[in-house]
Amino acid sequence: MNRLHDAKLYSFASDNYSGVHPKILAALSIANEGHQPAYGADVYTTALQQKIKQLLGNQAQAYPVFNGTGANIIALQSLMPRWGAVICAESAHVNCDEGNAPEYIGGMKLLAIPTDDGKLTPKLVAKQAWGYGFEHRAQPTVVYISQTTELGTCYTPDEIRALADYCHQRQMKLYLDGARLANALVSQNTDLYSMIAATGVDMFNLGGTKNGLLQGECIIAMHSEVQMSMPYLRKINAQLGSKMRYLSAQFMAWFEDDLWLELAQHSNAMASRLATAVADIPAISITQKTEANAVFAIVPKKICAYLREQFHFYDWNEQTQEVRWMTSFDTTTEQIDNFVTAIRQAAASL
Amino acid sequence: MNRLHDAKLYSFASDNYSGVHPKILAALSIANEGHQPAYGADVYTTALQQKIKQLLGNQAQAYPVFNGTGANIIALQSLMPRWGAVICAESAHVNCDEGNAPEYIGGMKLLAIPTDDGKLTPKLVAKQAWGYGFEHRAQPTVVYISQTTELGTCYTPDEIRALADYCHQRQMKLYLDGARLANALVSQNTDLYSMIAATGVDMFNLGGTKNGLLQGECIIAMHSEVQMSMPYLRKINAQLGSKMRYLSAQFMAWFEDDLWLELAQHSNAMASRLATAVADIPAISITQKTEANAVFAIVPKKICAYLREQFHFYDWNEQTQEVRWMTSFDTTTEQIDNFVTAIRQAAASL
Amino acid sequence: MNRLHDAKLYSFASDNYSGVHPKILAALSIANEGHQPAYGADVYTTALQQKIKQLLGNQAQAYPVFNGTGANIIALQSLMPRWGAVICAESAHVNCDEGNAPEYIGGMKLLAIPTDDGKLTPKLVAKQAWGYGFEHRAQPTVVYISQTTELGTCYTPDEIRALADYCHQRQMKLYLDGARLANALVSQNTDLYSMIAATGVDMFNLGGTKNGLLQGECIIAMHSEVQMSMPYLRKINAQLGSKMRYLSAQFMAWFEDDLWLELAQHSNAMASRLATAVADIPAISITQKTEANAVFAIVPKKICAYLREQFHFYDWNEQTQEVRWMTSFDTTTEQIDNFVTAIRQAAASL
Amino acid sequence: MNRLHDAKLYSFASDNYSGVHPKILAALSIANEGHQPAYGADVYTTALQQKIKQLLGNQAQAYPVFNGTGANIIALQSLMPRWGAVICAESAHVNCDEGNAPEYIGGMKLLAIPTDDGKLTPKLVAKQAWGYGFEHRAQPTVVYISQTTELGTCYTPDEIRALADYCHQRQMKLYLDGARLANALVSQNTDLYSMIAATGVDMFNLGGTKNGLLQGECIIAMHSEVQMSMPYLRKINAQLGSKMRYLSAQFMAWFEDDLWLELAQHSNAMASRLATAVADIPAISITQKTEANAVFAIVPKKICAYLREQFHFYDWNEQTQEVRWMTSFDTTTEQIDNFVTAIRQAAASL
Repeated sequence: MNRLHDAKLYSFASDNYSGVHPKILAALSIANEGHQPAYGADVYTTALQQKIKQLLGNQAQAYPVFNGTGANIIALQSLMPRWGAVICAESAHVNCDEGNAPEYIGGMKLLAIPTDDGKLTPKLVAKQAWGYGFEHRAQPTVVYISQTTELGTCYTPDEIRALADYCHQRQMKLYLDGARLANALVSQNTDLYSMIAATGVDMFNLGGTKNGLLQGECIIAMHSEVQMSMPYLRKINAQLGSKMRYLSAQFMAWFEDDLWLELAQHSNAMASRLATAVADIPAISITQKTEANAVFAIVPKKICAYLREQFHFYDWNEQTQEVRWMTSFDTTTEQIDNFVTAIRQAAASL
Repeated sequence: MNRLHDAKLYSFASDNYSGVHPKILAALSIANEGHQPAYGADVYTTALQQKIKQLLGNQAQAYPVFNGTGANIIALQSLMPRWGAVICAESAHVNCDEGNAPEYIGGMKLLAIPTDDGKLTPKLVAKQAWGYGFEHRAQPTVVYISQTTELGTCYTPDEIRALADYCHQRQMKLYLDGARLANALVSQNTDLYSMIAATGVDMFNLGGTKNGLLQGECIIAMHSEVQMSMPYLRKINAQLGSKMRYLSAQFMAWFEDDLWLELAQHSNAMASRLATAVADIPAISITQKTEANAVFAIVPKKICAYLREQFHFYDWNEQTQEVRWMTSFDTTTEQIDNFVTAIRQAAASL
Repeated sequence: MNRLHDAKLYSFASDNYSGVHPKILAALSIANEGHQPAYGADVYTTALQQKIKQLLGNQAQAYPVFNGTGANIIALQSLMPRWGAVICAESAHVNCDEGNAPEYIGGMKLLAIPTDDGKLTPKLVAKQAWGYGFEHRAQPTVVYISQTTELGTCYTPDEIRALADYCHQRQMKLYLDGARLANALVSQNTDLYSMIAATGVDMFNLGGTKNGLLQGECIIAMHSEVQMSMPYLRKINAQLGSKMRYLSAQFMAWFEDDLWLELAQHSNAMASRLATAVADIPAISITQKTEANAVFAIVPKKICAYLREQFHFYDWNEQTQEVRWMTSFDTTTEQIDNFVTAIRQAAASL
Repeated sequence: MNRLHDAKLYSFASDNYSGVHPKILAALSIANEGHQPAYGADVYTTALQQKIKQLLGNQAQAYPVFNGTGANIIALQSLMPRWGAVICAESAHVNCDEGNAPEYIGGMKLLAIPTDDGKLTPKLVAKQAWGYGFEHRAQPTVVYISQTTELGTCYTPDEIRALADYCHQRQMKLYLDGARLANALVSQNTDLYSMIAATGVDMFNLGGTKNGLLQGECIIAMHSEVQMSMPYLRKINAQLGSKMRYLSAQFMAWFEDDLWLELAQHSNAMASRLATAVADIPAISITQKTEANAVFAIVPKKICAYLREQFHFYDWNEQTQEVRWMTSFDTTTEQIDNFVTAIRQAAASL
């Protein structure tokens, strides 16, 4: 098969426009050849289990799945009864970007709370954490946060601990959607154990797809109580992969020499470089803290139109003219600098 | 990452124990580097669409998904109302191997019909194709067949046409689960167009995972009427991949120079070699025609116990001592011959 | 409002063609006037709880609902995880007469087993009670029986105990759909406690609608472990009635002086009278034991055509010419005798 | 059965604490005796169909069901695809009082919009009516309003027409939850045709339970296009009643001599009397227009505590000390006056 695409193409649209890191591709070859049992009984998935236990403690259990929507729904289901509700930020991925999959597949109600920066706090959660024992209200049993948030901001470990404590005092569970968890770890200058195990997160998704993997997310349960249900939930939600060795091998290569953190560090640095470079342009105002690999900014339509002749990125809110610029593990400083030059040109010509 | 597995390991357990064909791995590298739009807006998915139209006519539409369970449920949903039922063989994959995913996610009732060889006929379908307009009965609106069947047998194009005609006369649709469709095509010495477009199949899954892909299934709709619903159904069933270029590129490499048929041809030949070689062993009796890459046989428990010291394969029916031996694109003649030698040794020592 | 119907009309179609017993209607008036808390917090529902505990022991809990489909689905859900399957007779109401409601609302898989007389036995159940711990198979966690069966036959208490024992040895639960439980109790000359509490049934539906109530079914849980889930499951399945005092008052009147058993006794006697009266007609052959209020018989089409000029009843199996004749609490001996006379006339004129 | 309750008890808790109007009870007796076909094939249901067509035009179709949650879910499902979303007020019954039934049974996403008075406007709806064609967003296909609203306010026919027009211009449908529609009709001094048929409502629920029926809601479709799906949706959502003649007969008696409007008129007048009588009490402030049979007011906790020694009513918002006082068809002027006296006493003693 011939290459059909222009390998020089780059964009600021999304980190899932990016490619696969060479070491991840290499891992697929290494895991190849010969037969391995399907559905997770292979040696790479066993090794991944051990790696996760090493990172997070012996109770931790890993369940590789296909994508983030699947991961979120399976994990949330495992933490709640059929009559459960999930408290989340109004801007949360699970509320805005997964169609009605959580409702349709999962049957769950989302109780969405407006926030300024995409982050929940105990005080915000309290707005929906009520009605226990009242059968007319879907019972709020899980709090969903994402790290980084959908607005590119990050929780500190202390903020997560406060949420976990609040949840556990009310028999709720805390689930963390870590589609970009590596970006948050390097942003907060902390490690996985400190962010998750030490704070009391009950379950999380470790996202690989947006950070150098070909494809792969991994649900991680921090307590053994869901061990019985997870294999079945993964199966009935159609997220059980047969040739799982290739999913798990990607994660193993990703963990090796902390490649995952290195890639996230780079991605974050590129966003920071971009945010810093445009900070003094009067026509542009940055709307969220640039804590990870996304820059949110209000950018006049004329500037956007000019930029889009060359670069792909998304409107976040058409009415307020807010846009999102995302960087990836494979974004280069040259690409950032080209983009900044174009922004300055456009701003100057206004 | 180091290789953790023994690349010399082989088995007769399942074609999803097999690896990835080198040309498919190479395609991943070719599709790599640079940015491509996510969720199917990339050039490889566009090329796959064109390839499918070229093979099956301009109405055909391809929807790459993650796995067979997902493919089956999405396709079946798209063909029926919320109150629909699916007529299938009792031994069908959708009925036996997908947990209650079709019911849980899809809400559909399966009307399962016992068969001798895993194959439906109009006469068999008629046993459940009734009750139209009667609200107390889930309305049978789709017939599900798989090609090859779960018992390793194949439908001829004429048999499929007879089923399609029967369905269409009753406002039913015919869905074909082609997890091993390539094996059936070479078995029946025919091509995709003759098997699908010329017979009247309404929708099918083209399975790649069991035939040399790393991972990838592709729902193909033969009529434009589901075009509106498919993207949404794929999304809400959590089967929409972000970095779809890698799914599509695998299929493109698979189609190139008819690699997919070559692999299936080889896999079938290995099963045939095995079936032929054991045909004269009195203790063993083959129970289904070996038309593709599976051999079903009644094998005394003592023989099985001996074989399992070296080889992995599954019981099909413990009570009747029926086992299933599967071959793959990467099974070698030497492996078959080793296995046959072991079988003969075990049988001789009984 | 004027009477629009012919109050002399009678039929042998179904016991839900029948009316409401005068004492039940009277109970609605008695429970009327003044305000009572909604959703089951009224005094009649409290009294019903006490009555059920008196009949079945202090663990028993009653949950009035609207109809049998709702009752079955709620109860089955409460007894199983999201990945559960229900083992039932192929002829079971839950499998044949509830559309795909169990699958659509409940997400459950039904594992249906052919039977001669609509009755399961441990040996029959064993055909599907396997695959535990295997995530690819919906886990069989509940056995569903109905009493009477859909074929008008009855289980003895010993037969139910054998099923309950079999279930409990395998961590399964036994659910009994008692849409016509009163008919079975009088048929088997036993009482509710002996049939349910003494045999080990885990949960059942006590059906009132087919036996003199205006409308009302009542799920009864025999263990306290589902107490937490039942109110929520009833709510999310849209089966929680607001003015519940009227549902509960019907049941209270029904229990008074054993009216429910008296009505069932009469209904059964009418079926018995019918079956006995046609037993010697050579053209007709009765196909199931007439143990409750249904007569199943093979009746030549010409006889049926003649009868249907006057009487309404259903074909059970058009191909075998089997019909079902049902009697009700309000069927009279005169009506039976008229029907028998017509049958004899038709048979004689063949 | 003896009367167990105190028929003198009255409350301001909810209109579903009320009883059954004597003419409705009488209708049950009139419809009784003899056999009638089940599941809606009886003469009373036929008459109800005719009555509805007479009131709303020949396209209108009536589907009696058990309760409001069931009615809402069935109707909403019939108006949207599996990937649909419903736009509603944040305070809507479907969003606040039905647990996660809409999500769990219906699989639908609710897009809830904050309002001041429980009423949507085109401008408010526009906040969520976007994202068409974008598969990552549940597609907003139905707007849900209730009449009266959950806050006791009413839409004028013009306001409904504006919403219907807005919906239809965007291929959306307008569904009206009429659990208290009779109260709104008399409040707005208009008739059913003018409120529904003349404004463009696509489907609505005509609620009887809160206005004098024993139990009964009726989904009414204004276009023939859902005729095919409704019987099946009602069935698979477990809302198909067998002895439907009693549901339909209640509605027939309710329509006779406009009893339904007379009851609603009285109920509204009682709320108006209450609101007027407390308007000058400085400690109390009424928070919503009293347009139907509910009074919303901020009432100091001490007053509430005093009142609750005698009267039952609900807090609406504990934090703001807002309460809801509801009247019913059977509320008397004496009861209102007693209540007002008690309120004045409590306020005076503050």
